[in-house]
Amino acid sequence: MTDTSPDSFPRGFASDNFAGVHPRILDRIIACNHGHAEAYGDDAVTARARAAFNRLFGQEVSTHFVFNGTGANVTALMAFAKGNGSVLCSEVAHVVNDESTAPERLLGMRLTPLASRDGKILPEALEAVLGRGHGVHGAQPVVLTLTQPTEIGTLYTVDELRTLIDLAHAHGLAVHVDGARLGCAVAATGIDVRTMLVDTGVDVLSFGGTKQGMLCGEAVVFLKPELAREYPFIQKHAMQLSSKMRFIAAQFEALLEDDLWIENGRRAVAAARRLLAAVRNLPFVTVAFPVEANSVFARIPLPMLEPLQKESFFWPWDERAGLVRWMCAFDSTAEDVDRFVALLKSKA
Amino acid sequence: MTDTSPDSFPRGFASDNFAGVHPRILDRIIACNHGHAEAYGDDAVTARARAAFNRLFGQEVSTHFVFNGTGANVTALMAFAKGNGSVLCSEVAHVVNDESTAPERLLGMRLTPLASRDGKILPEALEAVLGRGHGVHGAQPVVLTLTQPTEIGTLYTVDELRTLIDLAHAHGLAVHVDGARLGCAVAATGIDVRTMLVDTGVDVLSFGGTKQGMLCGEAVVFLKPELAREYPFIQKHAMQLSSKMRFIAAQFEALLEDDLWIENGRRAVAAARRLLAAVRNLPFVTVAFPVEANSVFARIPLPMLEPLQKESFFWPWDERAGLVRWMCAFDSTAEDVDRFVALLKSKA
Amino acid sequence: MTDTSPDSFPRGFASDNFAGVHPRILDRIIACNHGHAEAYGDDAVTARARAAFNRLFGQEVSTHFVFNGTGANVTALMAFAKGNGSVLCSEVAHVVNDESTAPERLLGMRLTPLASRDGKILPEALEAVLGRGHGVHGAQPVVLTLTQPTEIGTLYTVDELRTLIDLAHAHGLAVHVDGARLGCAVAATGIDVRTMLVDTGVDVLSFGGTKQGMLCGEAVVFLKPELAREYPFIQKHAMQLSSKMRFIAAQFEALLEDDLWIENGRRAVAAARRLLAAVRNLPFVTVAFPVEANSVFARIPLPMLEPLQKESFFWPWDERAGLVRWMCAFDSTAEDVDRFVALLKSKA
Amino acid sequence: MTDTSPDSFPRGFASDNFAGVHPRILDRIIACNHGHAEAYGDDAVTARARAAFNRLFGQEVSTHFVFNGTGANVTALMAFAKGNGSVLCSEVAHVVNDESTAPERLLGMRLTPLASRDGKILPEALEAVLGRGHGVHGAQPVVLTLTQPTEIGTLYTVDELRTLIDLAHAHGLAVHVDGARLGCAVAATGIDVRTMLVDTGVDVLSFGGTKQGMLCGEAVVFLKPELAREYPFIQKHAMQLSSKMRFIAAQFEALLEDDLWIENGRRAVAAARRLLAAVRNLPFVTVAFPVEANSVFARIPLPMLEPLQKESFFWPWDERAGLVRWMCAFDSTAEDVDRFVALLKSKA
Repeated sequence: MTDTSPDSFPRGFASDNFAGVHPRILDRIIACNHGHAEAYGDDAVTARARAAFNRLFGQEVSTHFVFNGTGANVTALMAFAKGNGSVLCSEVAHVVNDESTAPERLLGMRLTPLASRDGKILPEALEAVLGRGHGVHGAQPVVLTLTQPTEIGTLYTVDELRTLIDLAHAHGLAVHVDGARLGCAVAATGIDVRTMLVDTGVDVLSFGGTKQGMLCGEAVVFLKPELAREYPFIQKHAMQLSSKMRFIAAQFEALLEDDLWIENGRRAVAAARRLLAAVRNLPFVTVAFPVEANSVFARIPLPMLEPLQKESFFWPWDERAGLVRWMCAFDSTAEDVDRFVALLKSKA
Repeated sequence: MTDTSPDSFPRGFASDNFAGVHPRILDRIIACNHGHAEAYGDDAVTARARAAFNRLFGQEVSTHFVFNGTGANVTALMAFAKGNGSVLCSEVAHVVNDESTAPERLLGMRLTPLASRDGKILPEALEAVLGRGHGVHGAQPVVLTLTQPTEIGTLYTVDELRTLIDLAHAHGLAVHVDGARLGCAVAATGIDVRTMLVDTGVDVLSFGGTKQGMLCGEAVVFLKPELAREYPFIQKHAMQLSSKMRFIAAQFEALLEDDLWIENGRRAVAAARRLLAAVRNLPFVTVAFPVEANSVFARIPLPMLEPLQKESFFWPWDERAGLVRWMCAFDSTAEDVDRFVALLKSKA
Repeated sequence: MTDTSPDSFPRGFASDNFAGVHPRILDRIIACNHGHAEAYGDDAVTARARAAFNRLFGQEVSTHFVFNGTGANVTALMAFAKGNGSVLCSEVAHVVNDESTAPERLLGMRLTPLASRDGKILPEALEAVLGRGHGVHGAQPVVLTLTQPTEIGTLYTVDELRTLIDLAHAHGLAVHVDGARLGCAVAATGIDVRTMLVDTGVDVLSFGGTKQGMLCGEAVVFLKPELAREYPFIQKHAMQLSSKMRFIAAQFEALLEDDLWIENGRRAVAAARRLLAAVRNLPFVTVAFPVEANSVFARIPLPMLEPLQKESFFWPWDERAGLVRWMCAFDSTAEDVDRFVALLKSKA
Repeated sequence: MTDTSPDSFPRGFASDNFAGVHPRILDRIIACNHGHAEAYGDDAVTARARAAFNRLFGQEVSTHFVFNGTGANVTALMAFAKGNGSVLCSEVAHVVNDESTAPERLLGMRLTPLASRDGKILPEALEAVLGRGHGVHGAQPVVLTLTQPTEIGTLYTVDELRTLIDLAHAHGLAVHVDGARLGCAVAATGIDVRTMLVDTGVDVLSFGGTKQGMLCGEAVVFLKPELAREYPFIQKHAMQLSSKMRFIAAQFEALLEDDLWIENGRRAVAAARRLLAAVRNLPFVTVAFPVEANSVFARIPLPMLEPLQKESFFWPWDERAGLVRWMCAFDSTAEDVDRFVALLKSKA
């Protein structure tokens, strides 16, 4: 091996999927690597991880472990697929902007993006779509998908969730929540996950793994387990069923133990708040959206973009508008933030 | 945590995906878990793992890391998808028997199973299908997929491969090889992978990871890299693109280093041979197919099935016929085999 | 217009879709061409045609008019589509041999061809597939489709139908019948359509229009109307909903009036019988399958094929085997048959 | 037959698909109903109709006859399908509002609706979408579809067409035009179809049949015939290939002869203009969009809606806003218009 390039580089604010694996999670993988175990989820570790989800939600839920976020979102939605159906989502949702055509191809349904404010679907936009009705001629809404925290780092309040969910249910739609970074929402608000998602009536949840500190893996959690009847078949033909399942399940066991997922969220949120505090008064920085979870969106002068990226990469959100995203991860530290702010100032 | 059930049980012969992770592979995961790295495969570890595949095949190939075997097979085939196309496979292939409807749903093509002997496609069966032709009215064969070793543990000779591949190419078809256990084929025959797959003209290969000792991950290797042009888009919308890619890539780096994949195959093949030697003369066992790789298929008296499974689980292949499969893994030892044979005898 | 090629040529035995439109059907189109009418089937003619189907089956059925045979078969099957499902059909069925990949692409399901004798599915072949069961890993049979008359011109007896249908129902499958030439079956056997299809338990039927004398159009008839709930949406997104529906419906009204469809079948069957009688003793002709409906399959010396086709075109069924198909239509006459037999003899 | 309901009702302004068949078109169907003809388009009538399209466009085009408008649009777009692709259309386009999920299901692509003014796509909206670019993560625009006349009865000027088409081509997109009512555009502007569609660079066209006076049938015309290579296969597996093709082709032959399609458009446009002239100054009517083709969109007092519809049905466009659509057909007469205007006034 003559290539001596390092495997990684110093922590920055590019994405929470630039981070590695939380040590307690990796330890659990190591710990369960002995002997043989049933494949495809029929093993003891998977059973224990499922039980942990039941405890988390204070009730029987139906939990399934898949590979990645797109896999979680799309297969969860597939449980409600209908030939002429459409999925309603925010216009800024990951599912419509970052998952290529996976939703259309796997679901065979249309995605209908709804107008949003600060990343959150406007109830009047939802109402307008539900009010239409075009017989056999139009696509028929069958699921509403919400993202908590939203793709731009804001949070639905419990009341906002309830309003949208009630509206959807009143029109016969199911409700999915994309919780790729759910721990940040719980950490930031202090609201219990049951209050936030069970009591508001959510039907199925993508519970994030990768962005919350795992190596790979997401959980699809049917909060109403009777809706999961077809899911094992869906998971299989959507190519999201891992054979050595214990190694994904073990990670979730570690992630839920002692609320590690919330602790990880807390660190990411704290870093984002520290970053916000440091940049909100910088004359060359304009914060673009409310900072409620683990990311800061800001406008910076275009000429600063490339020099900054070169030293500590991050993604532009709207390159022409100078809008950028700084995303904190479970492993972001106060020092990381301070170093980045110093870098920012040095390029101003 | 009150559930004290063990994570695993003693090694048996159920499947190579009941096994865990080879220690050298797990060590490599641990070793690269520091700092941040670009997501989705733009990182240094992925680049190095790709370079390792180039070295393995002695030429530039186009390598992509996906989550699982179905994902590898189906996305590889998607590179040749055509609206009215069909995929030709052996009637015993994994792709037609064990991957649910993933091929049809993701490819939008038909699977056409061909008659086989000992798991290997009969050239006359391939020829018959290629000779048809029904204008716009029939499905049109566009890819041939072969499995090496086959699903029932036999091996195509290089000549047999060449015959089928040449026939396919002469009719304009691409050729895919499912090499989920390719190391066993190389270990068993001593034939170099270049001779076996490059020189015979294979277009694209599913190079196994999970069954060859990894935690999770397979490689799609386009031996003719120009055919991979659309693959990155396919991989994404087929939901097979991992964000923290370095952790799959690192496993492949370890798997290829010092030919660990072949060494793993060698151990599995040796175990199968030892098992064969021990059972072939047992009066109550009839070996069903040639044992050329890492599995032994045998007929046993039906009443033995359940008692045996209870103590050391394995899968029936055709329950009513008393046909069972004993599959060796990279971690199968001589002691494991001897213990299992003793068990067999004790239940006779 | 300088092209003076004739629109058509003398009647032969190529296919029942080489024939034109029965005059009584065309007259009905002409008769309803005045004024305006609701589009998409909300018109009075469509209502009347639907009522005619209720009368035909002696009960309330749910009838929908589509464009073509593939459209009828595939949309009828779509009513039972399931993500991981498969459709069981005869290995000689139109749906698997002559409808390209429409079934896979529209249904997203697998087609599983079953072994047949004289075109009719063998109960043991059906039983074998239903007896399997591979959890989430295999495709799961959800519909059985039968063809009456079969693609090779044979007929299921009522007992044979009942055996297959009961077997399918016992395993939770729905049953579809492709009746593109159903009138021939009724005419040939004298068995009432209710006895043949309702009493045996068929769930949904493709009732042929085009091959039974119409210009264009097929009917999808749910004999159990409660199964049709989603069908209007399916019909629309499968692109099989005609806007000026009255003109398809009017044809069906004419086709059902005074049993024209059976009368048309009777003429086609009579022609086939006359042809059979004339050729069965010719030394150079070997009849290949029982002649039970409106087609004669025969082996003829290869050198005769092209000269014959040149004067009166027909399709080879298996060109290399010298197996050909002679298909009679609703407009085939005794003179047509005699002329063709004379031609046959002249080329011997 | 005891149901004596009339087949139709007096002409109104509900839709051009409420109309029947133009007598010259029906005559041509009758005229070609003799003898046998090759199925699936290999017949003399289809060849002549194709030649007529070549003459119309003054060059070799590749013409294919399908069943309905959705079938024409979707199969034309399928010629450019790509796994991760998206189709750009106006937010008011038929393809996104009136064809259910046929585009997503058949194309496997996303529909991306663009902002429009008076039904016409805004170049800046097109530019914005084309300027994005999100690697493998986003859907990738591959076709632009325009409607001429637009769904709300306006017309793109040749310059407007050229701007959008050039923009699309510059980014590697193909361009499709939905010309379901193209004759109205030609009749209203006096612009030759070659100038409008060939010289501006359109790649493929849905040339309307049904709404232009036919019984059933549309033409997919590849103005660049080399793009049609896969189309025959697409047409088949999309279930849009008629067996007795001569009867669709014959209608097109009649439709193109002596420019009947433009004459039909002229009558429809004249009726719309007469209607506009009569209602534009009525105090209770507000015309909503420019009237450039064969429809008038207007706001009327909500209480008038139902009484009017009861006597002469038409569709609301936005029921809550009192916005309605009056659509003229090829058979609309001055008397029809005058009678309708009198009715309007009587309900005011």
